[in-house]
Amino acid sequence: MSGHIGRMLTLQIFGESHGAAVGATLDGLPAGMAVDLPALEAFLQRRAAKGGELATGRLEADAPRILSGLLNGVTTGQPITAVFENADTHSSDYGFLPDCPRPGHADYPAVVKSAGFDDLRGGGHHSGRLTLAYAFAGGLALQYLASKGVTVAAHVLRLGGVADRPVDPVSPDMAALAACRALPVPALDPVAGEQMRQAILDAKAGLDSVGGVVEIVADGLPAGLGEPFFAGVEAVAAAHLFSIPAVKGVAFGDGFGAAELRGSAYNDPYTVTDGRVATVTNHAGGLLGGMSDGMPVIARVAFRPTPSIGLPQRTVSLSAMAETELIVKGRHDPCIVVRALPVAEGALALALCDLWLQAEGNRPAEAEHAR
Amino acid sequence: MSGHIGRMLTLQIFGESHGAAVGATLDGLPAGMAVDLPALEAFLQRRAAKGGELATGRLEADAPRILSGLLNGVTTGQPITAVFENADTHSSDYGFLPDCPRPGHADYPAVVKSAGFDDLRGGGHHSGRLTLAYAFAGGLALQYLASKGVTVAAHVLRLGGVADRPVDPVSPDMAALAACRALPVPALDPVAGEQMRQAILDAKAGLDSVGGVVEIVADGLPAGLGEPFFAGVEAVAAAHLFSIPAVKGVAFGDGFGAAELRGSAYNDPYTVTDGRVATVTNHAGGLLGGMSDGMPVIARVAFRPTPSIGLPQRTVSLSAMAETELIVKGRHDPCIVVRALPVAEGALALALCDLWLQAEGNRPAEAEHAR
Amino acid sequence: MSGHIGRMLTLQIFGESHGAAVGATLDGLPAGMAVDLPALEAFLQRRAAKGGELATGRLEADAPRILSGLLNGVTTGQPITAVFENADTHSSDYGFLPDCPRPGHADYPAVVKSAGFDDLRGGGHHSGRLTLAYAFAGGLALQYLASKGVTVAAHVLRLGGVADRPVDPVSPDMAALAACRALPVPALDPVAGEQMRQAILDAKAGLDSVGGVVEIVADGLPAGLGEPFFAGVEAVAAAHLFSIPAVKGVAFGDGFGAAELRGSAYNDPYTVTDGRVATVTNHAGGLLGGMSDGMPVIARVAFRPTPSIGLPQRTVSLSAMAETELIVKGRHDPCIVVRALPVAEGALALALCDLWLQAEGNRPAEAEHAR
Amino acid sequence: MSGHIGRMLTLQIFGESHGAAVGATLDGLPAGMAVDLPALEAFLQRRAAKGGELATGRLEADAPRILSGLLNGVTTGQPITAVFENADTHSSDYGFLPDCPRPGHADYPAVVKSAGFDDLRGGGHHSGRLTLAYAFAGGLALQYLASKGVTVAAHVLRLGGVADRPVDPVSPDMAALAACRALPVPALDPVAGEQMRQAILDAKAGLDSVGGVVEIVADGLPAGLGEPFFAGVEAVAAAHLFSIPAVKGVAFGDGFGAAELRGSAYNDPYTVTDGRVATVTNHAGGLLGGMSDGMPVIARVAFRPTPSIGLPQRTVSLSAMAETELIVKGRHDPCIVVRALPVAEGALALALCDLWLQAEGNRPAEAEHAR
Repeated sequence: MSGHIGRMLTLQIFGESHGAAVGATLDGLPAGMAVDLPALEAFLQRRAAKGGELATGRLEADAPRILSGLLNGVTTGQPITAVFENADTHSSDYGFLPDCPRPGHADYPAVVKSAGFDDLRGGGHHSGRLTLAYAFAGGLALQYLASKGVTVAAHVLRLGGVADRPVDPVSPDMAALAACRALPVPALDPVAGEQMRQAILDAKAGLDSVGGVVEIVADGLPAGLGEPFFAGVEAVAAAHLFSIPAVKGVAFGDGFGAAELRGSAYNDPYTVTDGRVATVTNHAGGLLGGMSDGMPVIARVAFRPTPSIGLPQRTVSLSAMAETELIVKGRHDPCIVVRALPVAEGALALALCDLWLQAEGNRPAEAEHAR
Repeated sequence: MSGHIGRMLTLQIFGESHGAAVGATLDGLPAGMAVDLPALEAFLQRRAAKGGELATGRLEADAPRILSGLLNGVTTGQPITAVFENADTHSSDYGFLPDCPRPGHADYPAVVKSAGFDDLRGGGHHSGRLTLAYAFAGGLALQYLASKGVTVAAHVLRLGGVADRPVDPVSPDMAALAACRALPVPALDPVAGEQMRQAILDAKAGLDSVGGVVEIVADGLPAGLGEPFFAGVEAVAAAHLFSIPAVKGVAFGDGFGAAELRGSAYNDPYTVTDGRVATVTNHAGGLLGGMSDGMPVIARVAFRPTPSIGLPQRTVSLSAMAETELIVKGRHDPCIVVRALPVAEGALALALCDLWLQAEGNRPAEAEHAR
Repeated sequence: MSGHIGRMLTLQIFGESHGAAVGATLDGLPAGMAVDLPALEAFLQRRAAKGGELATGRLEADAPRILSGLLNGVTTGQPITAVFENADTHSSDYGFLPDCPRPGHADYPAVVKSAGFDDLRGGGHHSGRLTLAYAFAGGLALQYLASKGVTVAAHVLRLGGVADRPVDPVSPDMAALAACRALPVPALDPVAGEQMRQAILDAKAGLDSVGGVVEIVADGLPAGLGEPFFAGVEAVAAAHLFSIPAVKGVAFGDGFGAAELRGSAYNDPYTVTDGRVATVTNHAGGLLGGMSDGMPVIARVAFRPTPSIGLPQRTVSLSAMAETELIVKGRHDPCIVVRALPVAEGALALALCDLWLQAEGNRPAEAEHAR
Repeated sequence: MSGHIGRMLTLQIFGESHGAAVGATLDGLPAGMAVDLPALEAFLQRRAAKGGELATGRLEADAPRILSGLLNGVTTGQPITAVFENADTHSSDYGFLPDCPRPGHADYPAVVKSAGFDDLRGGGHHSGRLTLAYAFAGGLALQYLASKGVTVAAHVLRLGGVADRPVDPVSPDMAALAACRALPVPALDPVAGEQMRQAILDAKAGLDSVGGVVEIVADGLPAGLGEPFFAGVEAVAAAHLFSIPAVKGVAFGDGFGAAELRGSAYNDPYTVTDGRVATVTNHAGGLLGGMSDGMPVIARVAFRPTPSIGLPQRTVSLSAMAETELIVKGRHDPCIVVRALPVAEGALALALCDLWLQAEGNRPAEAEHAR
């Protein structure tokens, strides 16, 4: 079961890497939102492999066919379904499956879970290909948030041992984050970005792969989003971010670093800025008690290195129950972190958009009178 | 809205820190499970403040009154509700609220969200007191898992700059983890534990607080639990773990460290051990593609330092919209990490138990024939 | 698993008839609503057995102990939990269980489902006693709707072969519905009500029971509530109404009678009344395509006769797998229809209130501008 | 928001009548089920308009393009998405919308709800066309149930004043129900069926429409399905059945007739038949306390007459806020009851299938030992 996610904005994803298509149904976006389709397609192209040196050789158009939910480019309030055809598949590359599960892949648990019936070719439903459908939904959520004055942007914070400059958590330079998307590896420090690019190429040359850390910022949120106990911003956002294949860590604000500080250093003092309540620092990443506090929301997401590598690897033959060596031939990315940036932005946006719509329904009586 | 969590095992938590009581309803535990109530109460006492040097001075019995769902100590299959009375409250300590939100606390977003109607005394519904109800449910999930041969245990991995020895991710010493619960600060290395204890006392002496990192292990899971895309183990477990107040980071296996490795170093090779498929290493923390792979599941959870500290802090008066200084008098823990250990174990257990029950419903046709 | 219901307003019910208590947690009511507790308690007393001639001899205080979610009588936006203690139980009356399931009761399927672990005394979790907790939540939903100008009221339409006058579906006399609550059997036609009362007494005298049909009206709803395809008003309301034990039929507007009409007779023509769109007739019961159309919502609910009767009945001994005769001694109502009126009103109100809050979150962009 | 339905078997439907396509995603069907695609397509053809005298002139292939979830015709355990292209649309027939809402249609509430942004052409997302996608999912659920020995079949019980013979609720003749599907109007009594056919033609000749009542039987269920309080069989099945457009009443067993009986006549006595517990009669429709009791489940579903009729009707111009006359030109069915039979069978099957999978997860400890 793949499951859906969200309460007022629900998302269901479907499809397999080597099946007919992948797609998504996003349900709950209010009626009347004009969708900027060219912008949405450009957003998806940030995720696309374009035949360049850093990405897989599998080339797909990645253009959505939107089946429902839009009329004249405006949301109707009904479910929005988009389908992306799979065209460039080489299923013959996966003849070793299901007998020889690839290390680091979902193959083995998927075989056990499905008694062998799951479609494993190219990773099946567990493939990074599904993030295309996810990004489609995320792109819509980003446009919704933008219509409310909220912008979300990410950069590569760490990759191959190279560190980019973190964003200023109090006054993030959203324009700089947007601008660095034009780079091969989007980093605020172009030198770091170039070193990261080289690290990817080095790994690729070694038939290997690298992981990395992404930093995402959501700027412009009001205070009070989030529905703790169980639907606090961190919980909902983490459920989204950990749904991205290859994510192994999620942190907000100082994250694991927070564990090293004393309360007096960590607590963000309040102040009044431009007539609004703000905090002087932002160790909390804009999140207190599961709710937004009006400061920028800052998340960090750790991606493991791409599991598919060209080097020989040790695995087992499930039929023989004996060890064997495996060389994976399928095309793959030496690093998925760069292509994951829009996916991660979209995942965070989906979480925030869902909580935004919930907050509308939960608006207190007072506030309603004040409208 | 506090929300419930879970699909086949759902949990709803209620109550405020200074209200009549806190409690939980856990729904979905199969009928016929004998609950070990003394063990459950002992489990909850691991979380209790017992008047010792490391915890808050607020002393509560923390004994559950179970209202439903058990007959002669055995689950009926109906919702299990437990209530914990609040007795030792000093609401007068919170006279500065709602005007002067405490830095690092949920006060400010809660005021904005609720237009001032939320109960803020002692943190209200956002208080760590709610983790008592959460732990009750977690304790039941732990007993369910134990009946299936799955054990879950945690220790303090980092605290106040001191590091404990991490567990062996391939062969975790579950007995050692259980044994160290007797220490003031449960660490595998007693010297580290003692240094951590001292770090807490130092912070307390300075009217300050410290955070820390908890490592949790779930041993004995079969391969194939988890329902990705959106209900993979990481996503479901993270939603639970981030629901614990003060958690700011969650990682599985190598976590953020995974981002620094190459695929050839990270991918866990398969082997055959005792006639079963296993991996030689366990960088993945027992989780591939959102599913368990049969190896120990290993999570790390970062807790921020307790927000309540005795030092003067800078805040604002919301009525005056001007800065002011605040000294919080309420009783509080200099460190919540130790008391959080059973809460975190329980949170992970709830996630795994829910996925276990889902896996029963999702069992493939083949496997059913094979029973 | 008992399950919760609702999306933006969720309800969980817990407890068993002869356990410690029954209760409910209602989560999602916006902060800032002043709860009229005396009115709520008076509402619950409409459901209570008061020792009169028409109801069970089991007498309970039925007074809620509210544990959470209210501060100074105003909602905080957090879960509202109420507990009702069970005091007047005679569990010894149920010694024939689980061996001899009562005809018409949940006993037999509950035994099979739970492998015998369910608590069957007095019906356990399946008892009408649980409707007390349900009515508590319904009473809150009714107060929320009332604050929006929506009133909900029910009467007994049929009972023991006697028919009351149906409400005028275009201009229901809500005051008359409210007024007839003072009668022993609330009917718009007092003569019919008196005949119904006699029918109940006749059944009681014959150690038997009767069922009946309830008609409920919700007046004052705006057009556009409901989230079809799967959360249309009928679907959500029916899920609530069928959750009331003993309900076997639910219909809206002309209901089963609609099946006998031609479209030209059934379709309600539009007109303009007082500057607002209205329909001339109301065969649709205020519901078109799963959405409210601004006319009164009218539902009819069929209750089977109380399963517990004093006459000897034919059952089986599960241990002997042989037929046997059973005489049920437990106290019971000769008719639950009258006591069910507030439960049904509350159930419909919960459905409408949930959809109301969802509509807030789904409000279209245009409408937001127009606020 | 269209919403999804189900807990362990979830369904999302998308599309508009005159959009690109309609479709469905069914998630949760266990891996390893061989799908009989020709049977599924034949099932869908029972719903199709085939150019005959009884149905709309809109002719569509109604052939599913399955995008995901099947590999070599066997379920993978991942979401199954099917798309049905819309080809034969005449959107110009709907030029009167959104200004002049059709009586009896969803037009008016949809306009209000969406601030005019919803796609109303041909009924948009509210169209009966969506039941094609619904029936696709239902057809899969029926095949799953069939693999467990459960059969579901329906017939037309009432139509145009003509009554068919009801099924025997204790020993329903499932073969007869299956056989009568070959008739123009499937009725157990062919004479009644022919009279119903004539009633449809009469209504058609009068530019009018008729409704009807469908009776559905599910035979072969074990006792103990259903998760009351809020997910009892009646509640879950009714939520599904009321999601079918045009349904205005749902009843189980004796339904509204139950309200007229005394308990001594209604309660079904237990007996032992072929070594199994059974009831002598089946007034309860196989459902006690929200759970199946092992007897046939019997539901009746009332359909209002098709709202689209060719006669002139009275409506309002929303722009002029004045009454006007409307003649609807779009093609439509004089009666949708016959085409609704497979939809209703599928809806009930989806409810039962979801509860079946939930029961797997909820299986009590005892029963597990007994496997």
